[in-house]
Amino acid sequence: MNVPLLVSPMLERAERIFPDKEIVSRMGNGIVRHTYRELGRRTRRLSSALEGLGVEKGDRVGTLAWNHHRHLEAYFAVPSMGAVLHTINIRLSPEHLIYVINHAGDKILLVDEDLLPLVEAIRDRLTTVEAFIIMTDQNKWPDTSLTPVYSYEDLLEDGDPNYVFPKDLDENTPAGMCYTSATTGLPKGVVYTQRSIYLHSLCMGLADTLAISEADTCLSVVPMFHVNAWGLPFACTWFGTKQVLPGPRMTPRVIAELIQSERVTVTGGVPTIWIALLKELEEHPYDLSSLRGLLCGGSAVPKEVLRTFEEKYGVSVVHAYGMTETSPLVTVSRLKSCQQRLSPGEQLEIKSKQGIVIPGLEFRVVGASGDIAWDGKEMGELFLRGPWIADGYYNDDRSTEAFRDGWLHTGDVVTIDPEGFIKIMDRTKDLIKSGGEWISSVDLENALMAHEGVYEAAVVAVPHEKWQERPVACVVLKEAYKGKVSAEDLLEFLKPQVAKWWLPDEVIFLDQIPKTSVGKFLKRELRERVTESLGVQEPVE
Amino acid sequence: MNVPLLVSPMLERAERIFPDKEIVSRMGNGIVRHTYRELGRRTRRLSSALEGLGVEKGDRVGTLAWNHHRHLEAYFAVPSMGAVLHTINIRLSPEHLIYVINHAGDKILLVDEDLLPLVEAIRDRLTTVEAFIIMTDQNKWPDTSLTPVYSYEDLLEDGDPNYVFPKDLDENTPAGMCYTSATTGLPKGVVYTQRSIYLHSLCMGLADTLAISEADTCLSVVPMFHVNAWGLPFACTWFGTKQVLPGPRMTPRVIAELIQSERVTVTGGVPTIWIALLKELEEHPYDLSSLRGLLCGGSAVPKEVLRTFEEKYGVSVVHAYGMTETSPLVTVSRLKSCQQRLSPGEQLEIKSKQGIVIPGLEFRVVGASGDIAWDGKEMGELFLRGPWIADGYYNDDRSTEAFRDGWLHTGDVVTIDPEGFIKIMDRTKDLIKSGGEWISSVDLENALMAHEGVYEAAVVAVPHEKWQERPVACVVLKEAYKGKVSAEDLLEFLKPQVAKWWLPDEVIFLDQIPKTSVGKFLKRELRERVTESLGVQEPVE
Repeated sequence: MNVPLLVSPMLERAERIFPDKEIVSRMGNGIVRHTYRELGRRTRRLSSALEGLGVEKGDRVGTLAWNHHRHLEAYFAVPSMGAVLHTINIRLSPEHLIYVINHAGDKILLVDEDLLPLVEAIRDRLTTVEAFIIMTDQNKWPDTSLTPVYSYEDLLEDGDPNYVFPKDLDENTPAGMCYTSATTGLPKGVVYTQRSIYLHSLCMGLADTLAISEADTCLSVVPMFHVNAWGLPFACTWFGTKQVLPGPRMTPRVIAELIQSERVTVTGGVPTIWIALLKELEEHPYDLSSLRGLLCGGSAVPKEVLRTFEEKYGVSVVHAYGMTETSPLVTVSRLKSCQQRLSPGEQLEIKSKQGIVIPGLEFRVVGASGDIAWDGKEMGELFLRGPWIADGYYNDDRSTEAFRDGWLHTGDVVTIDPEGFIKIMDRTKDLIKSGGEWISSVDLENALMAHEGVYEAAVVAVPHEKWQERPVACVVLKEAYKGKVSAEDLLEFLKPQVAKWWLPDEVIFLDQIPKTSVGKFLKRELRERVTESLGVQEPVE
Repeated sequence: MNVPLLVSPMLERAERIFPDKEIVSRMGNGIVRHTYRELGRRTRRLSSALEGLGVEKGDRVGTLAWNHHRHLEAYFAVPSMGAVLHTINIRLSPEHLIYVINHAGDKILLVDEDLLPLVEAIRDRLTTVEAFIIMTDQNKWPDTSLTPVYSYEDLLEDGDPNYVFPKDLDENTPAGMCYTSATTGLPKGVVYTQRSIYLHSLCMGLADTLAISEADTCLSVVPMFHVNAWGLPFACTWFGTKQVLPGPRMTPRVIAELIQSERVTVTGGVPTIWIALLKELEEHPYDLSSLRGLLCGGSAVPKEVLRTFEEKYGVSVVHAYGMTETSPLVTVSRLKSCQQRLSPGEQLEIKSKQGIVIPGLEFRVVGASGDIAWDGKEMGELFLRGPWIADGYYNDDRSTEAFRDGWLHTGDVVTIDPEGFIKIMDRTKDLIKSGGEWISSVDLENALMAHEGVYEAAVVAVPHEKWQERPVACVVLKEAYKGKVSAEDLLEFLKPQVAKWWLPDEVIFLDQIPKTSVGKFLKRELRERVTESLGVQEPVE
């Protein structure tokens, strides 16, 4: 049958088959609970209210919101009526907020009450927004300068709980948007379609990927303004999974308490969250026995974190990889059956890789001379192709950098081992190309950071007449070690760990490494500074 | 990205990521083993050879074969090159074989050596077949009157192991065909597309459906000529699952031995197979400890069979439902998390239903006055809609009977309980419509067959002046009970089990119930005979 792959039937399945399963939201004023039956009716009311405000098929509706049931309602109400849900990263700078809202052309903004100041400050420069909807409780109407402004709950009260979602949408209709927060330049918009969300959600339920199931209770720690919270809200709804949404300004304690009280079985977030959770666990006891898996993505998890969760708390950490452009799921690191017999140490080594590419995606790993060997050593850039990979940035000339010849060039440099496990080694732009070979700055940094005296280390490429580029290490020592560890000490420390030609030409001690607002190393700036201080000439390009 | 949903990337994933996993085939002369690496190369050789024989995109290639690696190669070689795999039911009558081959327009037939007589007998009446390929070992060339004829292994030897599958196919391209073996009339052809096979296969990997995984070893007992062996060969290949294919003329002993020796974790087949397996298990001991699930579909499993497998052998039986027109997976009976606390008896009751509709399909259950209540009692016909449901029969005027208003009218009468579990009650044409209410012939038959003296029972509707239709039971008694059990005895036996108005108006004792070649009751014939013998007038239509 020519039946389009749409978002609305996911919600409809939950309404019909799992009407009593819960969505638990931690709000500013405590825990609130809704069933899928209620979620369905509230979502239909929201679609009907948005229609009443003039939202038509293809219109963009922006959200500035934490993880909670109202945000989940918007996740379904907007795409299900054929409009486009633009989830806005609340951590963007005011300039970037203005840019993404105007660039997306958002017609309506749904804003959490405590995020109103972000929007009020930039209101005058928003050129397309026609109305604001404040996501607050009905009996608590905020004082705001925004206009025209509506109360979410008031609108719902007047909305139609039996609103019927259109079923004649083209599956390639845009359904969602998210902007990447680039380290340089303006954010770039990625569009998700009804079809891409459908297929990506289906893949999250596979036994060999995340195995999201009705029997799960899923805590989405990853923000709903970030790549659709990895797609968890869609998949969980479709499969009838109980959802726990941790609301505004959660802390490690909040996460631990929710896992314990709601008997969470699966949760997802970035490594920094789990490192902070570990600290909380060491200070207070919690019952985490319900957890079957802790999904970890966004950046590589330190091996020690994996080990501690498994050995000390009996929690299995599942490493995954993806990016805004990929919906995001690309790889999941689950042991193959043949690896179940390996020693715990060998298994840890595998789990610390990003994993194998999930069904439905095609990939290539391209090095200096074509597709690389699957030996876990040779490095190449990961190229991806598939039905939930974007085909360009939204109205953006920069699309041609990343999308070429039918492949997304991820900019991630990886190795791939004989079993097909991918390991992220570096970003292409941070890689050091020395004498026709590649050196991973990330690998060198990890090796340096294993030294007891090193607090932080960043390795950058500096131009070299003979070798083209050579690595230079920038190191911040811990207070107690300052003046006691020398460059020679660190190079000696590195020697048994890396190939000789990988050894940095210089080790420079700094007081701090320059970073972006989200804590990533600003390598370009560092490279410029180092090149200048060493008196090396940048080659003329 | 505009990437079509195709069959070939499933095989390519297995070749690249699971090259050493095995496909185990039981052939006439023993067990043979191939890896996915070998399967990939052999499949590419087959595509190239078929191309050499003139097979073009859209051409139909028929198979008359058991479950083995060569059949699996055809499963991928034919769709991957853009042609259509027509799996032919080897149990069809010669007339029906001729009909389906000519009606599909098969250009090439791939035939197992031991099935050659079937084809030789009808060769002269096949109007479209241009060549025959005999699936036999190279060193054993059969004597056959078929012409032109090729040896499968010879063709492969000359084929290109690096044949590149086209990636520019439209995903709505037909990829497979299977004819339903109707109880009356000519078989009806169902076409599967690249897209429908892709989506259906993905759904078989969901944690909440069949959870097919790399870690599984799957024994496909269901024939590969029957609805793509329920899609198991596609899903298993995609997910890198070890496959066990039981070859020609398997017996319950062969099945038990393969489960034991290959450490099978999941297997699928019809109830009669599992009933026969139970008998084998009672006679000989086998180690079935590797089995995590025994998929059962095609018709309802007797509750006693479910119970015996679970209690006596620790094997979980998973009930599923589907039909040729639905690829086939529609429902899977897995307990919801809220049902895990029920008593074993209550759980058994749920598992004996056909289950809940899997993600991706929409359904309605329509009774005499619209959509029925979800009370587990009211009966209605199941309507289905979804991307792996056919939208008609291939070149067949009978399509309009089953495909109306965008829904497949399954002809199956079901109840649905408050948790959404569907139970098949009857075929619409066998249902008894009495005084505006519906009586399930299947339910009455099951109730009768629970009597110790009853060997078989079939219940049919006979016309009735006042009530429109009334049930009449046709009963075959066991030898020892003949003459000792009366109609009154049986009605008394039924009374506590069914509503009073369900009680048959008559009980007729027969020596046997007329059946089709595959053992289904020929109810239409029975109904005519009974109506005549009772002297009732069929109303003029």
